[in-house]
Amino acid sequence: MNIILAEAAEVVDSQLTLSDYRAEHIVKVLKSEIGDRLRVGIINGMRGFGTISALQKKFPFSASVNLELSESPGTLPPLDLILALPRPIMLKRILSQVTALGVGTIHLVNANRVEKSFWEAGLLQPQEYRPHLLHGLEQAVDTRMPEIRLHPKFKPFIEDFCPSLVGDYHYLLLADPKGEHRLVDVVGEKTGRILLAAGPEGGWVPYEVQKFREQGFFCCTIGERILKVDTAIIALHASITALRQRR
Amino acid sequence: MNIILAEAAEVVDSQLTLSDYRAEHIVKVLKSEIGDRLRVGIINGMRGFGTISALQKKFPFSASVNLELSESPGTLPPLDLILALPRPIMLKRILSQVTALGVGTIHLVNANRVEKSFWEAGLLQPQEYRPHLLHGLEQAVDTRMPEIRLHPKFKPFIEDFCPSLVGDYHYLLLADPKGEHRLVDVVGEKTGRILLAAGPEGGWVPYEVQKFREQGFFCCTIGERILKVDTAIIALHASITALRQRR
Repeated sequence: MNIILAEAAEVVDSQLTLSDYRAEHIVKVLKSEIGDRLRVGIINGMRGFGTISALQKKFPFSASVNLELSESPGTLPPLDLILALPRPIMLKRILSQVTALGVGTIHLVNANRVEKSFWEAGLLQPQEYRPHLLHGLEQAVDTRMPEIRLHPKFKPFIEDFCPSLVGDYHYLLLADPKGEHRLVDVVGEKTGRILLAAGPEGGWVPYEVQKFREQGFFCCTIGERILKVDTAIIALHASITALRQRR
Repeated sequence: MNIILAEAAEVVDSQLTLSDYRAEHIVKVLKSEIGDRLRVGIINGMRGFGTISALQKKFPFSASVNLELSESPGTLPPLDLILALPRPIMLKRILSQVTALGVGTIHLVNANRVEKSFWEAGLLQPQEYRPHLLHGLEQAVDTRMPEIRLHPKFKPFIEDFCPSLVGDYHYLLLADPKGEHRLVDVVGEKTGRILLAAGPEGGWVPYEVQKFREQGFFCCTIGERILKVDTAIIALHASITALRQRR
């Protein structure tokens, strides 16, 4: 945890009082004392520092922190994600890792090779997935929570929802190890937002690829090596970020 | 498992007989029949296909496969890694993920912020870490096993071992979110090997950074966001790979 994050409603008169895992982190990991300064941010709000004004170092842990929040939230990450719903254990890791890397919206969609049972996972409830997003923000010292949208049916997603979405993006990329374009040949230094679609284990089926093509997506590859979805998402995010920074 | 991998010693007269998790995979996941062709490779050897000549579909599973191996192993990946020893659970994941991405040698080194107990992990025994490397190869359809080298003392590693190592590389990169160079400004299309050093959670201490600098390493960043080591390694590997493909 590289920043203590709090809801706006938890702050009263510039004072934040903690009595949960954050207080425990301050006591046991940071080993803070009264008067110490910490990185603090408000979820979807300002960032800055806090000075500890009271501390209960024994269980039940608690801490009071006086806030000075003067930094605006970071800019909206330029990348949004369409992700064929992965199995829950993998989704957890992906949510915190892509949040740490920076992502605007994550669209979780159905696909032919997505197991139906994945849609019944408790993890798809906001109160269940939100801690994993928070974990990514706490890691990366960010306050901007990604938006999660669920699309349990592929056809309405691609035919009805996508057309209203794609106009917002400069790049529409479909990741595919056998894609006919190298990512490096497609992504340039242009500004503008990127929408990246990544398939399930086993890949998109040809019908799905065709549907994405009809919406203007380019089939791109970062190489022929077949990667697990969690590895592939990070590798794609990092490759796109690096290629856009080129001079 | 996108390729069945076997030791050279397991092959007799171009025939491979399996009775372990690989036979189970052929029966239960691939649902293969006699006559089906599979991707097969020899560890640190050739790749190609195999045709199933016998199959025991009930426990204990077994399969016999006639091999036609005509593809040379892939080229040696251009990247080697120096990694401050991570905690075992993270090391497992890193080993299989970087093997899937492609790596030549992984040097696991001590650092000030590496917990001493990590060096006692059973995972550092070849018979314990090898399955995780194998897992990465099976994922990426590769046969070339990365080499693992352990360096439990930092000073002899950096002062005595590194000087003999660094001459082999065109790029010597030390990853650091606060590095003074952007990775994108340092890594060009040049060929030649890359040695990438990634620190522990909390980063290298200044003494360690200074020692790497003395060996000719450049302190590079892919951005200010602080990432967990497993996320950072994949992101760095992918960024470097993308930047070297530029035209």
